[in-house]
Amino acid sequence: MGLAPVPAETATRKDQMLAAAERLFRQKGYLATSIGDIEAETGVNAVGGKEDLLWAIASRAADEFFAAVEPIAAADEAAPLKLRRAIIAHVGVITRNLDAAAVYFNEWRHLSEPRRAEFARRRDEYEALFRGLMRDGIRSGIFAPVDEKFAALLVLSALNWTYQWYKPDGPMSPEEIGRTLADLLCNGLYRTA
Amino acid sequence: MGLAPVPAETATRKDQMLAAAERLFRQKGYLATSIGDIEAETGVNAVGGKEDLLWAIASRAADEFFAAVEPIAAADEAAPLKLRRAIIAHVGVITRNLDAAAVYFNEWRHLSEPRRAEFARRRDEYEALFRGLMRDGIRSGIFAPVDEKFAALLVLSALNWTYQWYKPDGPMSPEEIGRTLADLLCNGLYRTA
Repeated sequence: MGLAPVPAETATRKDQMLAAAERLFRQKGYLATSIGDIEAETGVNAVGGKEDLLWAIASRAADEFFAAVEPIAAADEAAPLKLRRAIIAHVGVITRNLDAAAVYFNEWRHLSEPRRAEFARRRDEYEALFRGLMRDGIRSGIFAPVDEKFAALLVLSALNWTYQWYKPDGPMSPEEIGRTLADLLCNGLYRTA
Repeated sequence: MGLAPVPAETATRKDQMLAAAERLFRQKGYLATSIGDIEAETGVNAVGGKEDLLWAIASRAADEFFAAVEPIAAADEAAPLKLRRAIIAHVGVITRNLDAAAVYFNEWRHLSEPRRAEFARRRDEYEALFRGLMRDGIRSGIFAPVDEKFAALLVLSALNWTYQWYKPDGPMSPEEIGRTLADLLCNGLYRTA
């Protein structure tokens, strides 16, 4: 007969808890946030501990990044085009999940082992998608023969900072921001024509 | 006649307090760090409150950034050369002050007014040095006619992330990191020759 479906209310409660935890972990920092703070904000009793919420937020953010970029990296297209699309997709994930992205970037350090190592492993796997695009672009002769690891780090650094300055009511859409970043990173500042 | 010099011991104590506060604010976050934590780490009684330490760290970091980049921006040289030198100098400040840089980037939000506004004003003034170099480089025709504000933000984003990954025992010196970042940002990823 199969498992009974999860009641809708339960999913909603969990989402409420996660949304409040994301916001508070970002604003106050993980260590300064208590389960009581999260319960007070949601009016819901917590199921599981504070670190379970951190783990859920960090894992969900990692899932979002992979879901956005993995299909692009696997597509049958030229690497430089895929890199442009991956840049736009990565910025899209950040701008749609500002609180979660801040937690993903800054608060994961407070995970205890083995979760911390698992998080670092998955993050490295994600960065490897960008290193691979860089390598393919260099091999095809379209990208200059730069240090692929360093170049991938530069690209992700430039993208990741968007969580610090992006405002949903700002003048540029996430897509425009992604395209402008991709143009600048690919073309560089020097005038070539 | 004049003022009595500050006793050497006082300066040392203050430096000890600031060094411990930088480390703890970075590791635990400002809100999760107590004055008691800082006293326990240094064995010194605090003079002034926790926010005074945050203000001192943020102000000193701002001073360092200005001291490194302002003379370069004011020099009588071509803007693209000055931008390269400013990039190297900015990375130098971060790599020499990793804890303070992390606090400068992330924890200043916890300053109360009017200090918070004063910090934001100075940071904007600092970013304007980079916007000015970008503008001059575009006017001189050496940089492509990009959005100067956005391009300055991209450059600083790529540089600022170094506090997240730089390891003093890594394979590249801060100077090499600065030069490699400047090359990539100026030339872009595309092969041009």
